[in-house]
Amino acid sequence: MEVTRQNFKDTLKTVCSAVEEADFLAIDGEFSGISDGPNVSALTNGLDTPEQRYAKLKKHSMDFLLFQFGLCTFKYDQEKSKYIIKPFNFYVFPKPFNRTSPDLKFICQSSSIDFLASQGFDFNKVFCNGIPYLNQDEEVQLREQSEERRNQQANGVGTPSFISPSSKGPAHVPEEHKDFINRVIGKVEALLTNSEKTLDLEPCTGFQRKLIYQTLNWKFSKGLHVETVETEKKERYIQVIKVDDEERKRREQQKREREQEELNDAVGFSRVIHAISKSGKLVVGHNMLLDVMHTIHQFYCPLPEDLQDFKEVTMCVFPRLLDTKLMASTQPFKEMITNTSLAELEKQVKEAPFKSPQVETAEGFHSYDTAQEQLHEAGYDAYITGLCFISMANYLGSFLTPPKAYISAHSKVVEPFFNKLFLMRIIDIPYLNLTGPDLQPKRDHVLFVTFPKEWKTSDLYQLFSAFGNIQVSWLDDTSAFVSLSQTDQVQIGDLIQAAMLVVFLRQERTRRGDREQDLGGLAEDRVSAAWPPSVVPLP
Amino acid sequence: MEVTRQNFKDTLKTVCSAVEEADFLAIDGEFSGISDGPNVSALTNGLDTPEQRYAKLKKHSMDFLLFQFGLCTFKYDQEKSKYIIKPFNFYVFPKPFNRTSPDLKFICQSSSIDFLASQGFDFNKVFCNGIPYLNQDEEVQLREQSEERRNQQANGVGTPSFISPSSKGPAHVPEEHKDFINRVIGKVEALLTNSEKTLDLEPCTGFQRKLIYQTLNWKFSKGLHVETVETEKKERYIQVIKVDDEERKRREQQKREREQEELNDAVGFSRVIHAISKSGKLVVGHNMLLDVMHTIHQFYCPLPEDLQDFKEVTMCVFPRLLDTKLMASTQPFKEMITNTSLAELEKQVKEAPFKSPQVETAEGFHSYDTAQEQLHEAGYDAYITGLCFISMANYLGSFLTPPKAYISAHSKVVEPFFNKLFLMRIIDIPYLNLTGPDLQPKRDHVLFVTFPKEWKTSDLYQLFSAFGNIQVSWLDDTSAFVSLSQTDQVQIGDLIQAAMLVVFLRQERTRRGDREQDLGGLAEDRVSAAWPPSVVPLP
Repeated sequence: MEVTRQNFKDTLKTVCSAVEEADFLAIDGEFSGISDGPNVSALTNGLDTPEQRYAKLKKHSMDFLLFQFGLCTFKYDQEKSKYIIKPFNFYVFPKPFNRTSPDLKFICQSSSIDFLASQGFDFNKVFCNGIPYLNQDEEVQLREQSEERRNQQANGVGTPSFISPSSKGPAHVPEEHKDFINRVIGKVEALLTNSEKTLDLEPCTGFQRKLIYQTLNWKFSKGLHVETVETEKKERYIQVIKVDDEERKRREQQKREREQEELNDAVGFSRVIHAISKSGKLVVGHNMLLDVMHTIHQFYCPLPEDLQDFKEVTMCVFPRLLDTKLMASTQPFKEMITNTSLAELEKQVKEAPFKSPQVETAEGFHSYDTAQEQLHEAGYDAYITGLCFISMANYLGSFLTPPKAYISAHSKVVEPFFNKLFLMRIIDIPYLNLTGPDLQPKRDHVLFVTFPKEWKTSDLYQLFSAFGNIQVSWLDDTSAFVSLSQTDQVQIGDLIQAAMLVVFLRQERTRRGDREQDLGGLAEDRVSAAWPPSVVPLP
Repeated sequence: MEVTRQNFKDTLKTVCSAVEEADFLAIDGEFSGISDGPNVSALTNGLDTPEQRYAKLKKHSMDFLLFQFGLCTFKYDQEKSKYIIKPFNFYVFPKPFNRTSPDLKFICQSSSIDFLASQGFDFNKVFCNGIPYLNQDEEVQLREQSEERRNQQANGVGTPSFISPSSKGPAHVPEEHKDFINRVIGKVEALLTNSEKTLDLEPCTGFQRKLIYQTLNWKFSKGLHVETVETEKKERYIQVIKVDDEERKRREQQKREREQEELNDAVGFSRVIHAISKSGKLVVGHNMLLDVMHTIHQFYCPLPEDLQDFKEVTMCVFPRLLDTKLMASTQPFKEMITNTSLAELEKQVKEAPFKSPQVETAEGFHSYDTAQEQLHEAGYDAYITGLCFISMANYLGSFLTPPKAYISAHSKVVEPFFNKLFLMRIIDIPYLNLTGPDLQPKRDHVLFVTFPKEWKTSDLYQLFSAFGNIQVSWLDDTSAFVSLSQTDQVQIGDLIQAAMLVVFLRQERTRRGDREQDLGGLAEDRVSAAWPPSVVPLP
C-alpha cells in the first residue's frame, strides 16, 4: 500500500492494527544518499573498530534523508499454514510544520538519486506528498509551546515573546503603524457597542498582527476572543469575536482540540515508528545498520556520540532486531550462500535445500510478484527481506528432533541472531552486538604501511611477497593496513624487520641510481614525500 | 519549451540560433534552497558591505542546486512592431558522467522544496530527466584524460594507473584470479589461430578487466583491438578483435569520435551557458545576483574568494547584465513602483503610464498566458522579467525628444542600468557594481548595540526614543546595528554618551532592586550575561 500525506491519516489505523497482529515485521529504507565522505574505502575500512565505524556513519551519512520507508507485516495463519502479509510503502518528507518550525536541510548525492531514478523512483511522491514527521524533542517542544501559549492566554498574558522590559505597558507602536492600529481600535470599539458579533480585520503582516494582539490585550481585557485566521489564499487576518465567558471557554476548547489535531498531524510518520517500537515485535532488516541509524535519527533523537549510548537507544526503540545479511553470512548458511546481497539471497532461498514459504497478501493490499523485479522500492525490499528470514528460519527447523517445517519468530533457533547488526566490509568483526560488548579480535598480524601515492595494491603484494598471502585494506592514497596470514606473534617481529629491510634495500638502490630496473619505471619526480614506505604494526 | 535530457541534443541548435538572433535574453533560476545559514536576518544584514554580502551568499547558498534554468529570447520584429519570443525551461541535474566522475552532493532546504511543490514543480523532471553538465575544469580534465588515454594506447602503454613500480613486468595476478586469467589467455591464443574475428569474454569485475588489459597488453602487443563493451543490462565485458593495422586505426578513429560525442553530452547544459556567454547579448534578470552566482558556480568554476575576482569572472561570462529589480527601485521608477517583487512589478507595468509591449510567441513554442499565473517556473519568470524590462525601457523612451515608443536593448537610455545587480535588504547600497568600485556610504550614524537576549525591537526603540527615528538591523539574539536618523557627526558623540547614560541608569536601578517597575517584569534570572546593553559607533 502506497502511503503519502494524502492518505496517511486514513491509513494509520490499518498500519497500527497490522503491526499489532503481526508475528514479525520487516523494514527497509531508501535514502537521498549514502555517504558524503571522501571515498568509500576510507569510510569503510576493513579494520575499523565498531566505534570507528559508528562514528564514520554518524558523521558522513546522517545528513541524508530517509525518504521512503518500507514496512511489511507478517502474520502466520495456522489453519492455512501460510503467512498473511501487509506491505506498506511510506513516502516521508520534513515539510515545515509552521513558519517558526525548523527548516530542515538535507543532502542529496547525485549517484544515489540517479540510481533511484533509474529504478523508477517517484520523487514527486516524496517532495510533494511526503508524510511529515517530528522527532521526540521537536514533538515535546511543540506540545510545550502550545501548552504555554494556552496557559498565558488563559491568564491574559501575551505570548512568551512579549516578556520584555516594555511588555507591561501599552505596545510600542512604531510611527508608521499608528494610523493602522488606531483604525483597528476604532473598529473594535464599534464592535463592542453595535449588534455585530464578529469583526474580520483586513489581512496584514505578522508584525501588525503582533501589534494588534498586544494592543487589544492591553485595552480590552475581557469580552473578546481574538484569533488569527487564514484565507484560502494563505493570507492571514485577525478575527475578533464578542463573547461571554461560556462561549469564550467553548471556543478555547475547540481551538485546543484543533491544535492537538494539528500537532498529531505534524508528528506524522513518527507515529508509525512509535507503533512499531511499542509493539516490541521482532523487526527484520537486510544489512540494516544504516536503516536503524536513520530511523532513530529522524524519528527519535539526534544520534548519541558514543556507541554504547547508541546501543541503549536502539534497544529502547527496537527491542528485538534481526539482520538477514548477518544471518546469511553465519553458519550454517555461510557455506550455502555465496552472495548475500538481497537480490541474490532471495534467489538462493528459492532453491533447495530451502523452501519458499507460502505467502498470501492480505485483502486490499498490493500483491507483489517476485518474478517481476521491483527491487529498491522500500516496501518490496522489506517484503523480500521477510521472505528470506522465513526460509532461513524454517531451514534451521529441519535440524530439530523432530524436524519442524514452521519456525516462529519467537523460536529458540533464531534467538542467536537477535540484536546483531551486520558490519559491512570489516574483515574480522562480522556484527555490531547491540546487547553486549563487541568482539575484539586479535590484530597483531596487521601492519600499518605508508608508501608513495603512485603505489597500487600490486606493489604491496610484491613488497610482502616473501611472507605468504596478505590482505590489503586501503586507508588513503599513501597508507593501508596489511594483514599477514600468519598470526603467530613471535614471527611478526621478524616479518616487520624483513619488510623494513626490503624497504631499505629499495631505498638504497634508488639512491645508487639503479632505480630503473628495480622500481619499474617509477620516475624520480614521482617519488613523493611518502617515500620510503614505512611499516608499523598496529598498536 | 520544456527541455530535459531526452530532447536536449535535438533542441540545442534551436536554443543556439534563438540566442544568436535575439535582441536580448532574460534568465531565471530555481534552486533546491536559498540559505543554509542560521537565520535570514543575520545572513542579509541591512548594513552588510558588498564584500560581506558576497562572502555570505558564497558560503551559505552555493551548496544548493540550480535545477531549473529559464531562458527567454526576445527578438524585435520591426515590421510587426512586436517582440517575437522563444521561452525555454531547462531541467538540470549533475548525473555522474561515468564511474570515476565526481559524485556531486547538494543540499535541499525543506521550505524551498515545499514551496516549489506547492507551485506544481515536477521533481521527477529534474532528478530522472535533468540535463547533465560540467564546469570548465571538469570539462578540461575529462578531455585531457581522454587525450592521455588515447596517446598511451597509441604508444602501447597502459592507462596512467599502470605507471607504478611493477608496471613494466607482467601484471601481478592475485592467486584467486590466476585460473580466470589463464582461461582468458587460452581463449585469446585460440582466437589468434582460428577463423573467428571477434571474441566476447564473459562479463567480469572492473578489477578483472584491469588484469585482462594488463595481461593482454604485455603478452600480445600487436594484432589485437581490445575494448570494454556494456550490455543492455549494464554488465561490462571485454571484446577482443583480431585486426590488421588499417582496421585498428579505423576502429580507434571510431572510438575517438564516440568518446568526443560522449564528452559533448557530458558538457550538456553548460553548452547553453557558453552560447549565451559567447553571444555577448544583454542578459536581463530579476533580483539576479544569486542566479548569476549559481550559474557561474555550476557551469564555469567554483566562485572566487574575492569579490573583485568574482566581478571579473562575471564580466567574462556575462559581459552585459541588467537587473529589473534594481531598475524598478531606481528613479524614475522608484516613485511609481511600490512593490518590486516580480509578481507585483508585472502587474504594475501593465497599468498606465506603462504600456504592455506587443509580444508574439514564436511558432512551435509554448505560449504563456500572463493572466493565468505560472509564476516560479523558471521559463515563465524569465519571460515576465523580459516584459518588465521592455515596459520600463519604453517608458524611458517617452522622455526623449522626440519621444520614442520603442527602446532597444542597445539604447543609451538603458545603459545606466547595465552591470549593476540589486543588493537585497541593504539600507544604503542599492546595488553591486560589476564594472567599478562599489558605493561607500558614510555610516557614522550607525551604532553597534548589544543587549540581553530577551530584548525585542521595541526595547531598542524605547532605549533610543530621545533621539528621533531609528532603524534597527538585527545581527543575532543579542546584537544589532541601530541607525540614527541624524547624520551630523558632532551630534553623534553626544548621542552615544546619552545612550550610555540611559543604559547606566537602568543598570543602576537594577542593582538597587527596583527593577520591577523599570524593567517591566524582566525577571532576574532572565538578565543574561549580555546585560548591560553596550552602544558603540561603527568603526
